[in-house]
Amino acid sequence: MKKYAFGIDVGGTTVKVGFFDIEVDGTLIDKWEVSTRKDEGGKYILSDVAKTINDKLSEKNINIEEVKGIGIGVPGPVLEESIVNKCVNLGWGVFNVAEESSLIFGIPKENILVSNDASVACLGEMWLGAGRGFRDLVLITLGTGVGGGVVLNGKIVSGAFGASGEIGHMKISHTEDLQCGCGKKGCLEQYASATGIVRKINEKLVNTDTPSILRQEHYLSAKSVFDAAKKGDEISMDIVDEVCEDLALALSYVSCTIDPEIFLIGGGVSKAGDMLTDKIQERYTEHCFHASKETKFKIAELGNDAGMYGAVKMIIDK
Amino acid sequence: MKKYAFGIDVGGTTVKVGFFDIEVDGTLIDKWEVSTRKDEGGKYILSDVAKTINDKLSEKNINIEEVKGIGIGVPGPVLEESIVNKCVNLGWGVFNVAEESSLIFGIPKENILVSNDASVACLGEMWLGAGRGFRDLVLITLGTGVGGGVVLNGKIVSGAFGASGEIGHMKISHTEDLQCGCGKKGCLEQYASATGIVRKINEKLVNTDTPSILRQEHYLSAKSVFDAAKKGDEISMDIVDEVCEDLALALSYVSCTIDPEIFLIGGGVSKAGDMLTDKIQERYTEHCFHASKETKFKIAELGNDAGMYGAVKMIIDK
Repeated sequence: MKKYAFGIDVGGTTVKVGFFDIEVDGTLIDKWEVSTRKDEGGKYILSDVAKTINDKLSEKNINIEEVKGIGIGVPGPVLEESIVNKCVNLGWGVFNVAEESSLIFGIPKENILVSNDASVACLGEMWLGAGRGFRDLVLITLGTGVGGGVVLNGKIVSGAFGASGEIGHMKISHTEDLQCGCGKKGCLEQYASATGIVRKINEKLVNTDTPSILRQEHYLSAKSVFDAAKKGDEISMDIVDEVCEDLALALSYVSCTIDPEIFLIGGGVSKAGDMLTDKIQERYTEHCFHASKETKFKIAELGNDAGMYGAVKMIIDK
Repeated sequence: MKKYAFGIDVGGTTVKVGFFDIEVDGTLIDKWEVSTRKDEGGKYILSDVAKTINDKLSEKNINIEEVKGIGIGVPGPVLEESIVNKCVNLGWGVFNVAEESSLIFGIPKENILVSNDASVACLGEMWLGAGRGFRDLVLITLGTGVGGGVVLNGKIVSGAFGASGEIGHMKISHTEDLQCGCGKKGCLEQYASATGIVRKINEKLVNTDTPSILRQEHYLSAKSVFDAAKKGDEISMDIVDEVCEDLALALSYVSCTIDPEIFLIGGGVSKAGDMLTDKIQERYTEHCFHASKETKFKIAELGNDAGMYGAVKMIIDK
């Protein structure tokens, strides 16, 4: 009887590991982190994961034969639930993660499922977070960048080139001078990521004389902007409006494509809470196709654990 | 043995009917059209379809018991493969087409599957047209309006409100004064439909003095514009460039959402052929996320029969 499974979320700084009893529906037994060793093109990452998994199994006196499978989320495009197509953050090129992990972990490769980190986070939120009760949902994460995951009929949509959910790279401005990390100009990520929001506030503070409580602060973050907006700070309110307008427009494009039941907003910026979802929804209603005016918006609930949960959910659903 | 099935495509002018032998994979036995009777809120449409189906069965001496099911494409949003949510063109409000058809046709309602017309056309193209060999594809139809259908993993994606594939209503301009049929301003449909292209050429002819071979023509169509562009007509070439730019941008948004393998271009405007796909693809490559640069583009092949084929395919796949 294969009673156990692991959910792994490989990030640029740490690897999050969840060990689950999946006999009934999936119960977290233990979770922990190991640091992501990016030396030499990230070649040690998978063996570090194997080591921490084996240590846990030894500690619990469980044989690897009792492990049904391992789900892995990675920060990059993934093809056929196995092949990563470059993870710049990890130093990885193109290779078959399932095959390589199979050799190191001692688990058949068909029991190792790999997907994009935002995709597994979306699946995790569907399972145990803000997406409970929904089967067609889209997660957009507003952090250093803007990521996204798409789940339809309860399954991750990966895309032909592993690039589904790349909502952050919709080109929404045609007048941008600066280049996005992806090489294009005018991507949503340049305006709606935490980084983008900080750039916007700094530009406004430099280019206007409007009084702002942020003029006294030494370190400005996206959080500072939302906090100031809540206090009625004019410049900050303008920026929040602009960011929500950009997000609403991009999500209306998603909606005109697949018309999901609900949008979940995650990532550090989502700590702004209802102010963010309310304003995005208000603007979305202006831009979306009339049939989709009732699409729901909610803040994601699982934070950094979403990926680990979604990763193991792939194994449970297999 | 249920050996037969019907594929029905209900349009605003005619209903297209295909009668299929589905014993092996699906062979068209016969196809014909009846006119769409829109009197009294379209209440006669389904009974007209029932009559023509029964006539055909009598003619062929086949019992209704031998019919596995009936697939129906309709020009509006459809929920749960059964409930239409208003078909303005037909005069239909909100009602359960599968249930009503079941009573009239004498076939169990679970054997009547209903979907949006562009969605079934996309499925039809996947089965027997330009989408053969693909499982993740998007059809965009450029006719009086701009429609769209989405098929992922070989199945139609309908959307939570039946509004998936409404690519024509992505808001791509923020400076438009005229209202789109949907009530918004600046929808793709206002620029890339046959109607939109005619509006654009008329505006250019009135507002500029640029010489054009179209100035002598009495009746201008989207076809006139593409034909003139092929002959090097300056104004027409500008319009083709603008239309392809708008389409490429919208399709890059689709791609950033679900990253399909291929885009099929259908509808009357698609008769422009390679000039259209080549130019859209060229501009798309500039706007899409880098991982999706290899997305394919192709002109749809089945024309007005696509819907009928896709409708019966839903029954075959059931």
